Amino acid sequence: MRKIAIIGSGFIGRAWAITFARAGFAVALADPVDGAPAAALRYIADVLPDLAANDLLGGATPEAVLGRLSAAPSYAAALDGAEHAQENAPEELALKIPLFAELDRLAAPDTVIASSTSAILPSLFTADLPGRARCCVCHPINPPYLIPAVEVVPAPWTAPETLARAADLMRAAGQAPIVMQKELDGFVMNRLQGALLEEAFRLVADGYASVEDVDVGIRDGLALRWSFMGPFETIDLNAPGGVADYAARYEQIYRRISPTQWRRVDWTGPVMDTVLAARRARLPEGELGARQVWRDRRLMALAAHRRKAAKEIGG
Amino acid sequence: MRKIAIIGSGFIGRAWAITFARAGFAVALADPVDGAPAAALRYIADVLPDLAANDLLGGATPEAVLGRLSAAPSYAAALDGAEHAQENAPEELALKIPLFAELDRLAAPDTVIASSTSAILPSLFTADLPGRARCCVCHPINPPYLIPAVEVVPAPWTAPETLARAADLMRAAGQAPIVMQKELDGFVMNRLQGALLEEAFRLVADGYASVEDVDVGIRDGLALRWSFMGPFETIDLNAPGGVADYAARYEQIYRRISPTQWRRVDWTGPVMDTVLAARRARLPEGELGARQVWRDRRLMALAAHRRKAAKEIGG
Repeated sequence: MRKIAIIGSGFIGRAWAITFARAGFAVALADPVDGAPAAALRYIADVLPDLAANDLLGGATPEAVLGRLSAAPSYAAALDGAEHAQENAPEELALKIPLFAELDRLAAPDTVIASSTSAILPSLFTADLPGRARCCVCHPINPPYLIPAVEVVPAPWTAPETLARAADLMRAAGQAPIVMQKELDGFVMNRLQGALLEEAFRLVADGYASVEDVDVGIRDGLALRWSFMGPFETIDLNAPGGVADYAARYEQIYRRISPTQWRRVDWTGPVMDTVLAARRARLPEGELGARQVWRDRRLMALAAHRRKAAKEIGG
Repeated sequence: MRKIAIIGSGFIGRAWAITFARAGFAVALADPVDGAPAAALRYIADVLPDLAANDLLGGATPEAVLGRLSAAPSYAAALDGAEHAQENAPEELALKIPLFAELDRLAAPDTVIASSTSAILPSLFTADLPGRARCCVCHPINPPYLIPAVEVVPAPWTAPETLARAADLMRAAGQAPIVMQKELDGFVMNRLQGALLEEAFRLVADGYASVEDVDVGIRDGLALRWSFMGPFETIDLNAPGGVADYAARYEQIYRRISPTQWRRVDWTGPVMDTVLAARRARLPEGELGARQVWRDRRLMALAAHRRKAAKEIGG
């Protein structure tokens, strides 16, 4: 049985553990806090029946998946025999640097060591490691067992073989890896999300649209096609002659708009009063937790729909 | 029976006709080309059974919906008794100006006259009309009978009542109106789409990600949550304390990224060679038409899924 070490058993680590165990891997969780891996296993035991009910355990029972998971007493124990270590420490460079040094010292030479960081470049915490060629970032969108995209990001010294192994592992775990050709602040997804959010905040701050209008424009508009095609395939199918035809017809619109988007509004400034008032009018603060449960149920139903539609209509 | 005049019976006009007729309105199609409305009705008759098979006709039969549609011999005949005229001429200002003058002359004073334009500000073709207060834009994403979002955009002189009537009509037709507070180049959706596409082209042009990687990052990543929540609700649920907490935690990342996005690459320049090669490797040019049929089937299945999920899990 192929083994994965989960380093740090908070929300991201737990979600990774579910993802790998569901795909048939042995998963050992380790955490600097005593008892944290055991608490993570209890949390996971609560989540698995919901996934089974939505046919999202690949046919396995919750008990079978749980049987692939274990709490390790130390990083060394978790890493023993693991082909891949997935690090999920808090997003602080000062923590990642000594942690990666420790993992690089403890792990067998052929273990890939990957960070879940969303915003720290891998070059910043792997530069001085003897084993820096086997280190990279594998950044998920949480929770990875419901959202397949994962960014695989190299430092300048990451070996091509490391990237290939990380990407292959992600595919084996049912994920959809994005393999970046070099590191870049924000990677791919946060750069795309940031571009969209910056415009969303500008539209609200400048008084052109409401917070709810922006959400309607995406959830009842643009994101429907994006959710099964992505933006390039969308425009490829949006002009009779394909993507070059689309650019020839419509680029002038975007060329005109784009420079008017080259400024930002401070999200924590006055616009936040507007955003907050709009959101809390639709969802009181006390209901945020219940709405997160709703979100995960909608994500589960969407995952089931996407699998069915791909099978019946084509992917 | 409430009546809608469809002015111009090409692809957008036909799709609007289906949308309104499905919702129970009488719909008259007019076109400057002889025989065009009749051809549109034949096209619509072909589409309706597919919609019925996906339970997207609100329980009506294709025959019943078809019975609400008629080909009008002239603009005047189509406008006679219509509460709303939806104009769908080609995207050329030089065409819209005389067309709107004609429609304003022919339509009863209380008929709302709306353009489907995606990229021309309503002030540019309604300024000199006696009835300019009853003119606005209602911009759909095509096809509106599968994608609910519609932008309702005022010129500076559009009456608030016009906007309210247009928005009410859109809701009655099953659409999700975005009512802009003032006109702006690109409206809301093309500004959001443009922001995302500009970054997508930059990432590919600069060699950080492949065309397929960008599509994976959206379709298997960001657009899953966006497709039922929109971007503001997504970030509201992505930090324990809601959207203000999200901004406090993560704005620094976007503040750092944003200025690096303040430049554009020419979509029709060298990057298009890369985009085109990637797209044609996945989808030969000869299969674009079949893939558009696939897209519409996936959109139909997604619409059915969204309705079911909203009912069972909550919207």
